[in-house]
Amino acid sequence: MIVVMSHKASEDDIEAVLLRLEKNGFKIHLSQGVERTIIGAIGDKTRLGDLGLEAMPGVEKVVPILQPYKLASRTFHEEGTVVRVGDLEIGGNAVHVMAGPCAVENREQLLSTARLVKEAGATMLRGGAFKPRTSPYSFHGLEEEGLKILAEAREATGLLVVTEVMDARTLPMVAEYADVLQIGARNMQNFFLLKEVAKVDKPVLLKRGPSATIEEWLMAAEYIMAGGNYNVILCERGIRSFDNFTRNTLDLTAVPAVKHLSHLPVIVDPSHAIGKWRFVPAMARAAIAAGADGLLVEVHPNPAEALCDGPQSLTPENFSAMMDDLRQIAAVMGRKMG
Amino acid sequence: MIVVMSHKASEDDIEAVLLRLEKNGFKIHLSQGVERTIIGAIGDKTRLGDLGLEAMPGVEKVVPILQPYKLASRTFHEEGTVVRVGDLEIGGNAVHVMAGPCAVENREQLLSTARLVKEAGATMLRGGAFKPRTSPYSFHGLEEEGLKILAEAREATGLLVVTEVMDARTLPMVAEYADVLQIGARNMQNFFLLKEVAKVDKPVLLKRGPSATIEEWLMAAEYIMAGGNYNVILCERGIRSFDNFTRNTLDLTAVPAVKHLSHLPVIVDPSHAIGKWRFVPAMARAAIAAGADGLLVEVHPNPAEALCDGPQSLTPENFSAMMDDLRQIAAVMGRKMG
Amino acid sequence: MIVVMSHKASEDDIEAVLLRLEKNGFKIHLSQGVERTIIGAIGDKTRLGDLGLEAMPGVEKVVPILQPYKLASRTFHEEGTVVRVGDLEIGGNAVHVMAGPCAVENREQLLSTARLVKEAGATMLRGGAFKPRTSPYSFHGLEEEGLKILAEAREATGLLVVTEVMDARTLPMVAEYADVLQIGARNMQNFFLLKEVAKVDKPVLLKRGPSATIEEWLMAAEYIMAGGNYNVILCERGIRSFDNFTRNTLDLTAVPAVKHLSHLPVIVDPSHAIGKWRFVPAMARAAIAAGADGLLVEVHPNPAEALCDGPQSLTPENFSAMMDDLRQIAAVMGRKMG
Amino acid sequence: MIVVMSHKASEDDIEAVLLRLEKNGFKIHLSQGVERTIIGAIGDKTRLGDLGLEAMPGVEKVVPILQPYKLASRTFHEEGTVVRVGDLEIGGNAVHVMAGPCAVENREQLLSTARLVKEAGATMLRGGAFKPRTSPYSFHGLEEEGLKILAEAREATGLLVVTEVMDARTLPMVAEYADVLQIGARNMQNFFLLKEVAKVDKPVLLKRGPSATIEEWLMAAEYIMAGGNYNVILCERGIRSFDNFTRNTLDLTAVPAVKHLSHLPVIVDPSHAIGKWRFVPAMARAAIAAGADGLLVEVHPNPAEALCDGPQSLTPENFSAMMDDLRQIAAVMGRKMG
Repeated sequence: MIVVMSHKASEDDIEAVLLRLEKNGFKIHLSQGVERTIIGAIGDKTRLGDLGLEAMPGVEKVVPILQPYKLASRTFHEEGTVVRVGDLEIGGNAVHVMAGPCAVENREQLLSTARLVKEAGATMLRGGAFKPRTSPYSFHGLEEEGLKILAEAREATGLLVVTEVMDARTLPMVAEYADVLQIGARNMQNFFLLKEVAKVDKPVLLKRGPSATIEEWLMAAEYIMAGGNYNVILCERGIRSFDNFTRNTLDLTAVPAVKHLSHLPVIVDPSHAIGKWRFVPAMARAAIAAGADGLLVEVHPNPAEALCDGPQSLTPENFSAMMDDLRQIAAVMGRKMG
Repeated sequence: MIVVMSHKASEDDIEAVLLRLEKNGFKIHLSQGVERTIIGAIGDKTRLGDLGLEAMPGVEKVVPILQPYKLASRTFHEEGTVVRVGDLEIGGNAVHVMAGPCAVENREQLLSTARLVKEAGATMLRGGAFKPRTSPYSFHGLEEEGLKILAEAREATGLLVVTEVMDARTLPMVAEYADVLQIGARNMQNFFLLKEVAKVDKPVLLKRGPSATIEEWLMAAEYIMAGGNYNVILCERGIRSFDNFTRNTLDLTAVPAVKHLSHLPVIVDPSHAIGKWRFVPAMARAAIAAGADGLLVEVHPNPAEALCDGPQSLTPENFSAMMDDLRQIAAVMGRKMG
Repeated sequence: MIVVMSHKASEDDIEAVLLRLEKNGFKIHLSQGVERTIIGAIGDKTRLGDLGLEAMPGVEKVVPILQPYKLASRTFHEEGTVVRVGDLEIGGNAVHVMAGPCAVENREQLLSTARLVKEAGATMLRGGAFKPRTSPYSFHGLEEEGLKILAEAREATGLLVVTEVMDARTLPMVAEYADVLQIGARNMQNFFLLKEVAKVDKPVLLKRGPSATIEEWLMAAEYIMAGGNYNVILCERGIRSFDNFTRNTLDLTAVPAVKHLSHLPVIVDPSHAIGKWRFVPAMARAAIAAGADGLLVEVHPNPAEALCDGPQSLTPENFSAMMDDLRQIAAVMGRKMG
Repeated sequence: MIVVMSHKASEDDIEAVLLRLEKNGFKIHLSQGVERTIIGAIGDKTRLGDLGLEAMPGVEKVVPILQPYKLASRTFHEEGTVVRVGDLEIGGNAVHVMAGPCAVENREQLLSTARLVKEAGATMLRGGAFKPRTSPYSFHGLEEEGLKILAEAREATGLLVVTEVMDARTLPMVAEYADVLQIGARNMQNFFLLKEVAKVDKPVLLKRGPSATIEEWLMAAEYIMAGGNYNVILCERGIRSFDNFTRNTLDLTAVPAVKHLSHLPVIVDPSHAIGKWRFVPAMARAAIAAGADGLLVEVHPNPAEALCDGPQSLTPENFSAMMDDLRQIAAVMGRKMG
């Protein structure tokens, strides 16, 4: 960490900073320039947050040098992590597509969707039993009934199940049925929930919050890993920007960026990012071309009748055509579809 | 709501939309122009989310006309709402300042801060017992011990207590000690938690999420109100923008905007928005001049020793000087300090 | 256009709006609901900006229905436009890569780069003779000398030249040497300059402004087209967001979105968007997979010695490897490299 | 500046960086830690942009320590600058309000507005003769005729005139009539234009670009100052954010922030930032309470008939009421209205 002192800092101000750094076990390099004094401090980055240096008199700014995450960092673990879900390997050579409706609406809807996406090449089934909705007056999911339908679809098709957990109280119930626990974008910094899923022996799919920097996203992963669960799959799903033509702005550069910074697998959810099915296949192709390890895609047998997020759902026909393209893009990347 | 059909929509597409609208009880006005057909639909706005119109063939876009919130809307309740907290009235003539440290660190720190802010004119005490922190390695609060210290400070000074509740499980504990339950910015769309605080007979201070639009913020208030708790105080605390010189961008225009759209009281937290104590007094004055009903301000007896957010905390001296200015600004606004 | 009247609007307010719309040649549909009156108006969208309806008493909001651009719209011109540059066709089957250094630094640098990118498969040469720089103390380009070097490189390699024009006064000089006139991101709404390039008989490459919505970008294209120059190539180059890990956020969804809304060709500049060469090849692949008609890429024989934007420049070796991948992605898209 | 080397950097990589720094006259401090090597370099910050360090092998990141602007910095000039416009002093004790219509529409409109704002206490007249408009089909201003009307209004009322210059070619014409040259938000990084106004002996009002950081804004001021014109007045006018309820997000914290970083006077334009007249008075009060040196406000005798930006224009009555409030807020700040 670099501490830049104000050009008005007194000798006492500088002394006080040096003292606090030393007291906290940092090794110090002092540069006294004409314009200002700069203090380099090397030590345990994880304590940095609580040192309070920026509030000390004469301190102009504190510039962190090392990343604040450790377990999630590629420096810590050079090889890419492969997260195992049943027989599947997320982050290995195979590209995995997790498909299904936004919400589990009923048995027929889910089972028919599951069969169709399985046939087209998906390896996992998505579908919400608990739905976070902006309006208190919208459909909020079938809850345990929805989870049971998901489990039945797994039996029927062999697709593994990823579904959202919204709350610590319902976590045991969701963990009983799901193969992968999804943390939704709005819960990315729900630290209580992160600590709870850290204790469960199931892989976690961690969506990026709509206003989370890549660093904050990796810090959320760090929470889960620090709690003992190393099976974290990251999922880019769009960030909030000023342009509202699409629902969010899909930040595909986050894929190679996260692969550079971290060893964790990264997948992409183009459906939620964009909010318009028409642009989903193009961005699914782009995601694989950018190096994503998989996709989370909404498919509905009849989008116009969907209880949730119909406008962003592909029909089974569109999904199947998209999968054909993805197979070819994956081949260019030296990968196969999972 | 207005449904704009694509210029390529067929007669059948239009028929299907009309049918669905009628089936859902909407009254319809049809405009068939040369370039495209536009359908006006008047009915129960709260159902709008689940109609799925945007996913129907031939539909180009759906433009909502009415606001999606109802109980939080000024149309619903023309008079400004006054939220009572003990003997205090938030949203009445008096401007209330809620002050204290970011986190409760120990008995001495809190009690001395409480006495100092009381003396300077604050009417409520803030202080976190549960702290959401970006890093799993930071200080996370004293939990119940912190709540007890807050209650003791209330006894000692008469200041009422506002403190954050982070999770449904700890809600009963927090509600036992707090006078106002704070929902933090990161939890603004934690819908499970919103539903839970809706059931508690305590006022709720609802912080705006860092990437929440004003409409989404009012929808979060709607959740609490729809669950039966009408005592909601809104708190602007900065939104995320591209400029990182300050921690967030304080959106003060949200104060008159929310007062126009809603009947709920609005306060401002300049400390978290800005992240640098130096600019807090200027923005506190601006907030009152913009019409805010109060402030949430961080004060620490020794910011450089704070376990959390020292850089944004005022010293008691700075706080006291700020309060003198605020009294004068409030007087210009025809208000007094609470 | 839809005019939504306030629920407090009087009969006179409504009358006044109707009168103004009729006076301006709009056809009107009136919907008087219980909660509010809604006026649909059909007419010449291009006049809409000057009607002043939103400032009339009783008007709550005005919702435009049609796009404000016309010549740039796909409704106006259903077929995709192919822009011819010499023998090249931008927007046709072939994907074109425009490569070269950020700035023309000297004869040797440019000629060697030109030969290397030509060999690797580029069809056009990029290089700035006039450089907009954030700092007045940075290198600002060789000006006419730079243009002459670009022309010499064209002679030597057959690569056509795209270079930025920053100002109406230097436009004739730039137009004398360039094959394509580039309007930089910061000048996207320099309306004087747009009107001037509209009068020149050269294709224009129009970069998206870092805070421009897709609609504003297409309105900038409309300026050029309305002035008589229909040969506009759009170039996505990243938008400003809250995350600063990359220089800007590359909005690749803009590629299929613009192709849906407009008939103009769209290319992508991953180098400027990202600012770090390491992530450029991944996003170049993604751009082609998303349907882009070409790329603008920075290549420098020795990035560490570049006078401008070295960190985002590929070495010739990296560029060549990237081109091999792009050929395969283009093939999947049913296209060939230009 | 701090150069952070990658943990994989070789001895040769480090040597090469040291060599380049020394060759460019930097004084060096080397910290070789266990995890990585950090190089501190002290020297002429203005050369920093062209060193290309970030592109050198083994360099992880370059962290600038000093601000990239010099003449605009408060370190360079501790006292606040007072810009003289005729007899007025911008940045002194008096708060100045510059008011008038968005565009000069005709003689009657401007003269009557000028008289009304003068009477209410404005000291300067604003009004556009050249209007940058998003649509090529909108009203673009009366050009020289508009400038003549502005000059006539100055004669008639004594109000000094601030008006926008959009282009180097029309600069001499605008400079002939205007007392202050306004650089519009979209031109904040039109570096050619900045260099031209730097040569003119008139104060410049420099609006912040809608996606400009505070640092970029001060760099634009640096361009003008480096060119020889030190009379720069900064004007905050809203930044682009994700929330579209108001046109832009007024970043009032920029007022105390810029006053801290720079010695230049700062005014605020709430009309353009917000786009809705209803919220303008509240934010005008807030701006003065935050420490602004003045305001730029749109006033129109009949906003509903305005050719430009009617929705954000105050009526003369609303303007006059607002001025009464501002006088009181200014008094609290120890200032008087100009």
